[in-house]
Amino acid sequence: MLTHTKIKLLCQPTHESWLKQALNNLDVILLDHSHCERKAAGVAVNMLFRYPSHESLIHQLTAIAKEELEHFEQVNQWLEKKGIPLAPLKPSPYGATLKDAIRRHEPHRLLDSLLVSALIEARSHERLGLLANHCPDVNLAKFYQGLMASEARHYGIYWVLATQYFERQIVDERLEELAQLESNILSHLYPEPRIHS
Amino acid sequence: MLTHTKIKLLCQPTHESWLKQALNNLDVILLDHSHCERKAAGVAVNMLFRYPSHESLIHQLTAIAKEELEHFEQVNQWLEKKGIPLAPLKPSPYGATLKDAIRRHEPHRLLDSLLVSALIEARSHERLGLLANHCPDVNLAKFYQGLMASEARHYGIYWVLATQYFERQIVDERLEELAQLESNILSHLYPEPRIHS
Repeated sequence: MLTHTKIKLLCQPTHESWLKQALNNLDVILLDHSHCERKAAGVAVNMLFRYPSHESLIHQLTAIAKEELEHFEQVNQWLEKKGIPLAPLKPSPYGATLKDAIRRHEPHRLLDSLLVSALIEARSHERLGLLANHCPDVNLAKFYQGLMASEARHYGIYWVLATQYFERQIVDERLEELAQLESNILSHLYPEPRIHS
Repeated sequence: MLTHTKIKLLCQPTHESWLKQALNNLDVILLDHSHCERKAAGVAVNMLFRYPSHESLIHQLTAIAKEELEHFEQVNQWLEKKGIPLAPLKPSPYGATLKDAIRRHEPHRLLDSLLVSALIEARSHERLGLLANHCPDVNLAKFYQGLMASEARHYGIYWVLATQYFERQIVDERLEELAQLESNILSHLYPEPRIHS
């Protein structure tokens, strides 16, 4: 089911130019990955605040937030092992552009927030998979491999939540628009190496 | 050491009028407790965003955020067991008044943020202890008892972080001011039952 969902979520696969850029800059990718995990936790926690009565959402996103924080810790342990200090990093326009596409009024805001998170998790899953398969550091490759199952589960959960709170047809139509945007953003490689460059 | 820290942190113990109000409204207290755990997680996660290069803070507050989310889950399970639906709840002025006391510019902002969190955790620890000792529901009392060790650890961590990033004398002086404010806010019982009424 998740593979099927994945096929439905991402319009276009990652271009090989991203993989080349990432493999040439694994330290920066690792630092950016740390920021991504923290941001993923932040997004889930923010939704706990915005929808305090949505039982199913609260239940699922609390679990996701905890897992993202665990991954944040694990990536930070890798940074420490490699002697890479924690530091701010200018993000690619990917996250901000997708965030701008979230409509401001409810119930659209909830639908768009869930679908944007689903798309980001699906793309992260795809790219961590590429790193798992091509990273020359065998242990780091194993680490990426280990994170993939969670990322797949996460985008599945965001998508299922969308279908719990909205009719399937409305979810499908909006997902198609947002997925097209998501792939468009990545159609030109961002010059700085990032998980979502 | 933690007991010593506790004595240093809180200026005034909780008045028995709070305990009476809380015991007469255990369902509302439980719902408010859920909001408190979510807010505590939110505060820790926000600090991860604000101080992305502070290694020790990142390390400690990631662990705290995870624990607060676990407590949030546990309190929500209690709400479900008691048939209390998740719902928004107007907060007492406690949190907002303490937040207003956080100075806006660094490095004061970091110091004040750490000390305000330490004080809130210390007060939560004290009040959960009162509930643990006086709650007529034996299982709920055990649950409160179980949370107390974490709350004590949390306020210890916030205080230790303050002393890592600032000179001890500066920490002590500011803590005295904020602790006085914290006790002043609670000197008049808020009419609605809350963890921090």
